[in-house]
Amino acid sequence: MAWATIATWRMAYDGVATAAGILDRDGTAADAVEELIKVVEADPRYTSVGYGGLPNEEGVVETDAAFMDGDTLAQGAVAGIHDVKHSVSVARALSAQHLNSFRVGEGASRFAREQGMSVPSMLSQQAAASWRERKKQVEAGEIAPYDGHDTVGAITLSSSGSMAAATSTSGLFMKKAGRIGDSALPGSGYYVDSEIGGATATGLGEDIMKGCVSYEIVRMMGQGLEPQEACDRAVYPFIDKLLHRYGKAGAFSLIALDRNGRWGAATNVEFTFCLATSSQAPQVLVATPGPRGTTSIETDDDPAAL
Amino acid sequence: MAWATIATWRMAYDGVATAAGILDRDGTAADAVEELIKVVEADPRYTSVGYGGLPNEEGVVETDAAFMDGDTLAQGAVAGIHDVKHSVSVARALSAQHLNSFRVGEGASRFAREQGMSVPSMLSQQAAASWRERKKQVEAGEIAPYDGHDTVGAITLSSSGSMAAATSTSGLFMKKAGRIGDSALPGSGYYVDSEIGGATATGLGEDIMKGCVSYEIVRMMGQGLEPQEACDRAVYPFIDKLLHRYGKAGAFSLIALDRNGRWGAATNVEFTFCLATSSQAPQVLVATPGPRGTTSIETDDDPAAL
Repeated sequence: MAWATIATWRMAYDGVATAAGILDRDGTAADAVEELIKVVEADPRYTSVGYGGLPNEEGVVETDAAFMDGDTLAQGAVAGIHDVKHSVSVARALSAQHLNSFRVGEGASRFAREQGMSVPSMLSQQAAASWRERKKQVEAGEIAPYDGHDTVGAITLSSSGSMAAATSTSGLFMKKAGRIGDSALPGSGYYVDSEIGGATATGLGEDIMKGCVSYEIVRMMGQGLEPQEACDRAVYPFIDKLLHRYGKAGAFSLIALDRNGRWGAATNVEFTFCLATSSQAPQVLVATPGPRGTTSIETDDDPAAL
Repeated sequence: MAWATIATWRMAYDGVATAAGILDRDGTAADAVEELIKVVEADPRYTSVGYGGLPNEEGVVETDAAFMDGDTLAQGAVAGIHDVKHSVSVARALSAQHLNSFRVGEGASRFAREQGMSVPSMLSQQAAASWRERKKQVEAGEIAPYDGHDTVGAITLSSSGSMAAATSTSGLFMKKAGRIGDSALPGSGYYVDSEIGGATATGLGEDIMKGCVSYEIVRMMGQGLEPQEACDRAVYPFIDKLLHRYGKAGAFSLIALDRNGRWGAATNVEFTFCLATSSQAPQVLVATPGPRGTTSIETDDDPAAL
């Protein structure tokens, strides 16, 4: 059977290539999605995920992550944890437990330590320097504190028809201590059901969680909509609703993959994502809002660029 | 216009009476739902909410709470916080912020302290004694550690047509440090849209969050279903799905209220809830699973009993 994987942002390119290799060798959807996220978490170049992630306003790198098994609907999640490089692996470990599968803060960090999953420090020298520099700029009123909040979110479909989803992020730059976004929240940051498909989000979590947008996309696919149609119909009316009811809507972008390997995306900003299938080598795509609630998607000319 | 309020469990009776008074004097849905929850949080007799709540396995009372404004869709939430009596008020304060509106662990506890909302200790003498006793029993294998996980969740409809929802819980007794359930999670533990209605959940959070059940009930009401029909159609098929896919399903119970003051409930265990409307004095109702995906609901003979 055909396999496929999709993930948010250009930064997921190497991870998607890794996941594609696993899926092509008939690996599991769960292993592929975890390894995909781990590649991004380990790369210090990405300032919004894992090692190298930008810290909160107190200079601490706090991360959120989740894992969901589309066969069983089992979920594991962590939020506001520190000193963990592979938060996604902690989330996956928690998904094996019926109880206590979503843990936050110090209790979650301690679980990671007990599992041998913690590291001395998640703050790279470069992230620390960025934090010091930006803190000065923020204090001088030169930049907004909340630039940059790009989550890696991914969905995988294995050759056996299983699906999985996972997310990982260091959240809003200069966020308040303990602030969490949508990435760890089921239905908001991610959702997957192997009998239907999966979806995942990136952007301003505080707004994404007002609409359970990932769940809504999966639900619509379950009613027979193609992934692209489900993304368009779930995302753009919700943005309109937010503008009308809440008065504003942050940037957000969603991707979806169904059980047949079909995919879609919707976004209110320019948004890159990565894709690989059993008949398509890893590639970077660029999505932009199109006319009348649609999405324009083009292949990227230079997928190797960061 | 007619007002109404509904809340989970018999323990909400006094809170519902308080909310009814506020709504009858044309108070806001937001004020009414916050005061309703605060009455339950302040009562040391209730071992699953607020002061008197049973602690986690380390003997610390950690609480989760959320607040949602159905007019604007604004949400605020806290999870895994300690030394806060009125977690719902912290959640409501956070809902006024566009960013950093969901905070967990130490960062959230510190925010509460800064707001003057913390107390020296949330552990009542009785809860401490229960914890010591039950810890011995758990260690001796006599009882399961996870008895008792009753969240207070409530929805209010004001005479002006605004709606609000809120939740508060100390979570699973003997939970692991930092464990959070569905109560603070939008779409899982609660959801409300003043143009449609609201829903809230109590029970085993780890299973409720696998299906975004509160969001799903509101969505179905938005498609024209009456609250009772929406509860039945969202809850019972999801329980079947959990049994089929995950192999088991914990206890859970949901209630809903729509913008016209109509209400509903669905549950897989015997479940009490409280209700008051502009034409109905506060009362306790008992819901049990009925035949073929329906719910049997009766008024309680002795509403004053705890």
